[in-house]
Amino acid sequence: PLLTDEVELRRHVEKAVEETQVIDMHTHLFSIEFGKMALFGIDDLLTYHYLIAEMFRSVELKPERFWRMSKREQADLIWRTLFVENSPLSEAARGIVTILKAFGLSTNAATLDEAREFFATQDVAKHFDRVFEMARVKAVVMTNDPLDAREAHVWENGVRIDARFHAALRLDRVLNDWTNAVPKLAERGYAVETAIDAKTVAEVRRFLDDWITRMRPLYMAVSLPDDFRFPSDDVRDRLLREAVLPTARAAGLPLSLMIGVRRGVNPALRIAGDGVGRADVKAVERMCAENPDVRFFVTFLSRENQHELCVAARKFSNLMPFGCWWFLNNPSIVAEITRERIELLGTSFIAQHSDARILEQLIYKWKHSRRVIADALVEAYTRLLASGRAVTAREIERDVARLFSENFRRWVAIEGAP
Amino acid sequence: PLLTDEVELRRHVEKAVEETQVIDMHTHLFSIEFGKMALFGIDDLLTYHYLIAEMFRSVELKPERFWRMSKREQADLIWRTLFVENSPLSEAARGIVTILKAFGLSTNAATLDEAREFFATQDVAKHFDRVFEMARVKAVVMTNDPLDAREAHVWENGVRIDARFHAALRLDRVLNDWTNAVPKLAERGYAVETAIDAKTVAEVRRFLDDWITRMRPLYMAVSLPDDFRFPSDDVRDRLLREAVLPTARAAGLPLSLMIGVRRGVNPALRIAGDGVGRADVKAVERMCAENPDVRFFVTFLSRENQHELCVAARKFSNLMPFGCWWFLNNPSIVAEITRERIELLGTSFIAQHSDARILEQLIYKWKHSRRVIADALVEAYTRLLASGRAVTAREIERDVARLFSENFRRWVAIEGAP
Amino acid sequence: PLLTDEVELRRHVEKAVEETQVIDMHTHLFSIEFGKMALFGIDDLLTYHYLIAEMFRSVELKPERFWRMSKREQADLIWRTLFVENSPLSEAARGIVTILKAFGLSTNAATLDEAREFFATQDVAKHFDRVFEMARVKAVVMTNDPLDAREAHVWENGVRIDARFHAALRLDRVLNDWTNAVPKLAERGYAVETAIDAKTVAEVRRFLDDWITRMRPLYMAVSLPDDFRFPSDDVRDRLLREAVLPTARAAGLPLSLMIGVRRGVNPALRIAGDGVGRADVKAVERMCAENPDVRFFVTFLSRENQHELCVAARKFSNLMPFGCWWFLNNPSIVAEITRERIELLGTSFIAQHSDARILEQLIYKWKHSRRVIADALVEAYTRLLASGRAVTAREIERDVARLFSENFRRWVAIEGAP
Ligand SMILES: [Mg+2]
Ligand SMILES: [Zn+2]
Ligand SMILES: [Zn+2]
Ligand SMILES: [Zn+2]
Repeated sequence: PLLTDEVELRRHVEKAVEETQVIDMHTHLFSIEFGKMALFGIDDLLTYHYLIAEMFRSVELKPERFWRMSKREQADLIWRTLFVENSPLSEAARGIVTILKAFGLSTNAATLDEAREFFATQDVAKHFDRVFEMARVKAVVMTNDPLDAREAHVWENGVRIDARFHAALRLDRVLNDWTNAVPKLAERGYAVETAIDAKTVAEVRRFLDDWITRMRPLYMAVSLPDDFRFPSDDVRDRLLREAVLPTARAAGLPLSLMIGVRRGVNPALRIAGDGVGRADVKAVERMCAENPDVRFFVTFLSRENQHELCVAARKFSNLMPFGCWWFLNNPSIVAEITRERIELLGTSFIAQHSDARILEQLIYKWKHSRRVIADALVEAYTRLLASGRAVTAREIERDVARLFSENFRRWVAIEGAP
Repeated sequence: PLLTDEVELRRHVEKAVEETQVIDMHTHLFSIEFGKMALFGIDDLLTYHYLIAEMFRSVELKPERFWRMSKREQADLIWRTLFVENSPLSEAARGIVTILKAFGLSTNAATLDEAREFFATQDVAKHFDRVFEMARVKAVVMTNDPLDAREAHVWENGVRIDARFHAALRLDRVLNDWTNAVPKLAERGYAVETAIDAKTVAEVRRFLDDWITRMRPLYMAVSLPDDFRFPSDDVRDRLLREAVLPTARAAGLPLSLMIGVRRGVNPALRIAGDGVGRADVKAVERMCAENPDVRFFVTFLSRENQHELCVAARKFSNLMPFGCWWFLNNPSIVAEITRERIELLGTSFIAQHSDARILEQLIYKWKHSRRVIADALVEAYTRLLASGRAVTAREIERDVARLFSENFRRWVAIEGAP
Repeated sequence: PLLTDEVELRRHVEKAVEETQVIDMHTHLFSIEFGKMALFGIDDLLTYHYLIAEMFRSVELKPERFWRMSKREQADLIWRTLFVENSPLSEAARGIVTILKAFGLSTNAATLDEAREFFATQDVAKHFDRVFEMARVKAVVMTNDPLDAREAHVWENGVRIDARFHAALRLDRVLNDWTNAVPKLAERGYAVETAIDAKTVAEVRRFLDDWITRMRPLYMAVSLPDDFRFPSDDVRDRLLREAVLPTARAAGLPLSLMIGVRRGVNPALRIAGDGVGRADVKAVERMCAENPDVRFFVTFLSRENQHELCVAARKFSNLMPFGCWWFLNNPSIVAEITRERIELLGTSFIAQHSDARILEQLIYKWKHSRRVIADALVEAYTRLLASGRAVTAREIERDVARLFSENFRRWVAIEGAP
């Protein structure tokens, strides 16, 4: 039946957004099979790099001293600074509150004792299942670096990975740090040289093919700096044109581009020290135009690139905008981006990804995003109703599924159930 | 009487915004006298380039195939893709719903039969009158290209044009494609050469003067790319300085600049393939500073130029910001632009233009814009009331008239009634 | 007690924002001791450069003619143009309404007679006290230019300045106009030369030290153009590196950078003729990275730099974002900036400064800002409550105090009571 009443309409939109399972297309999570790489629990949550950066603004402390502390000491300091001495109003701090509350833990305790006790006593496998259920996430995509020795070890041993965790072949070392990648590739038996010639290109393609066979990734991915240009007269351009794009074409794998990060703006903050820069959307347009047979997932880190990305996506059906990345993943900005995407692209974009690094972040990242996306959709459907078209609950579910999983799934080859 | 009650205030603002007739200062509409150039009806509405671009994102189809289809087949495909298989949530798709509803037609039919039947059976002249009344538009400005043979033919035959349709002399071919304009000008008897010398400048001025006499345009206009600079060492700069600006001065005609379009980003999409780029507002500031006796209507296509445009307008009273152009003409963006304009410029800007290409778009473009502008004005008057100043209904009407027609009318020489 | 009810929560947030006294960290106000430099009253309020710029958009008048009018005539013209013939919807115009209302004066009078009568009959000292109380401002920071003869005269005579007025040592003449600063410095006995050598650097440092001793400023400050780069191969860079930054370090004084102004875009408008440009946030990042022992207050004039500034502040704990400057000081933009700052920085920023030039502007600037900041905070606390954490009234007061005075006070050495 048509939903012609605004209150009913809101209820159905909120229900669909609440209940629709997501495929989380970009995370830094690892399944249990990856051992210590799989992060979870309160100490990992509190030492998330978003919170480290914020802590330094509210306490007098030299970064060197912080890095010498144990993870437990770091977590205690962050808790005291951002949750006891201040109100956790920032998005990243509020996320911790959402997680604690979800598990029925105190959100304003003086210490982390209760939370630590809780996480330490969970059965890990059951805890993973529970978090996926609580977050209503049916699958996540990891970020997999074949040149990371710990990771490679798991893959090379043919360990069977939890079916909810899909691989993405991350190319940052090859595309952004070629000089240091060369010896690592050579070590693994690929006859590459720093100066790029046909032989080196062929060996990079062999490297990619081997890892595609091994990981069965859903896509290849790279993060790119704000000064990324395409075309360009550099090593990255040659590797993209001669190795990565032909591999994407041959293997039928999309390429994911995350553009606008400036690495190590403040090296003293280590992983928390990366910045943002406005990038050139024309680079993506040219890549899409030159490679109509390759599909591109694209996100930009600068707020000032978001409207341009929507317009570019109107021009190229092989360009899929996704998520609100990192410094953009805040309610006021997700609200504005989601609205402009709906208005310019209908439902032909991927509404969000979590970028989660610690398991339980799935809970807060998706709960917070769902809230903002639901509001944007309620507004859109209410406007549509006022214009003269009522929708059905079934249509709302179809639309939300498109935003939360189908636009992604249609572009990748997910096997099995999800 | 002073409106000191918020509910009363809102009612009066909404009424004024609803009822005030607009002069639509930039469209691509043509009056009936232009024959087949005057577009209207469901097939033209559905094959609007905004919807073509969106359709390609939701259906697997090569552009070449689409362009080989008849207009009717194209319209059917777009209806099925964006209105049946998906919810019409984008601004352009919702616009169609608004139009269908305005005529009492079904907004969720499986086919276009009913709509086609309706539009095919209207008396065209009465239909034009009806649309103007429904949209509460008292006059529109066309986009008139004297180097378009079909158009020139109408003008040269001295056909009497519907008084609601005013001319604007569009200079894109001359200013953006000089090399190809030269033979066309030569063909029409203007002794121009590709290399610009005094003789060529004089002939361009003669060409402009002839068409100003013939069309009696309200202003001259040009769309400009995102990399437009002023001053600049190129042909466009010389033509602007030596022909266009002197003509504007001599004829007392404003110059309208629409800046930030990138033509043919994806040529495969043809008219739907243009993109956006952030432009340099300093170019406009310099032009306004050098030509204090010429009035400039200015709009930018990039969201990231909007605040700068407001500031530039504070510096130059010969600069009139107008409308929310193309990719900006979406509720969330019109809302933010209108608010920042009111806050920085009071009522000294032109709130909107429709850019309509198909007659009935006047209905949805103005209905949607009125809704957002009314909200922004209600907010502004409510704040003013809270600050201590109540306004009268008469004052509200005066202010809305300024935004919808008077700021434009004061700068142009509209003859007769409107 | 924990505020678990949304209505109660809103009430407490609004109360805290309403009642918390601010330290206004950047104004152009002067205390009574500075004589005619201390501006107040209706004629100065109406001839504020914000309103001059707006007036020119709504009346036909050549700037030259305006500048020949007396201040009283100018004020009359601005009142008639922006308050009688138009509704005062812009932020600057509405500000006047707020001030008139605060003193119980008519907000829609035909003339300025009543207002003039009122201001002319106030006891000046009591009026200053009253305004500070009405605005709930406990202290303001002036903008002090030691190369301004009128100002220097006051300082050099050892006049005791009203304790609510703190000094800031403004470096614009030295850093932005070195060639003209040289003779002025020389005149005052500093042996500087246009070409910068060790002797000149030493003399600039001596000049700064002398004025630091004389003014006891809370910080040094400079406004910078949109094309400011750091590092850079120019005089300003050398003066910054060799004189200003070492002085900041030695004296323990923060440096305030206000970036993005383009001076004299329209010289005919004089003080009302400055524009805006998007600047390079990387310049600030580099300065913060190279000078970890110097604290920087930073604000940008371009809306398109605001998100980047938030991200930069996450990277550098010696970078304190402050205020919504000039063309950004409008409700819709303050609303978006404040939200993104809270979401990215919690309470580790300075919410606002007034930039007031005329005493009574303190009333409207702070009243308007408080309204928008309260809304943003209510939203943030309400979200936090929904996430599972209630706060106490005491915590809200602590947070608001941080935003309104403590983040500033912690970085400067305010003596005595405030
Ligand atoms: Mg916004
Ligand atoms: Zn990531
Ligand atoms: Zn147009
Ligand atoms: Zn200032």
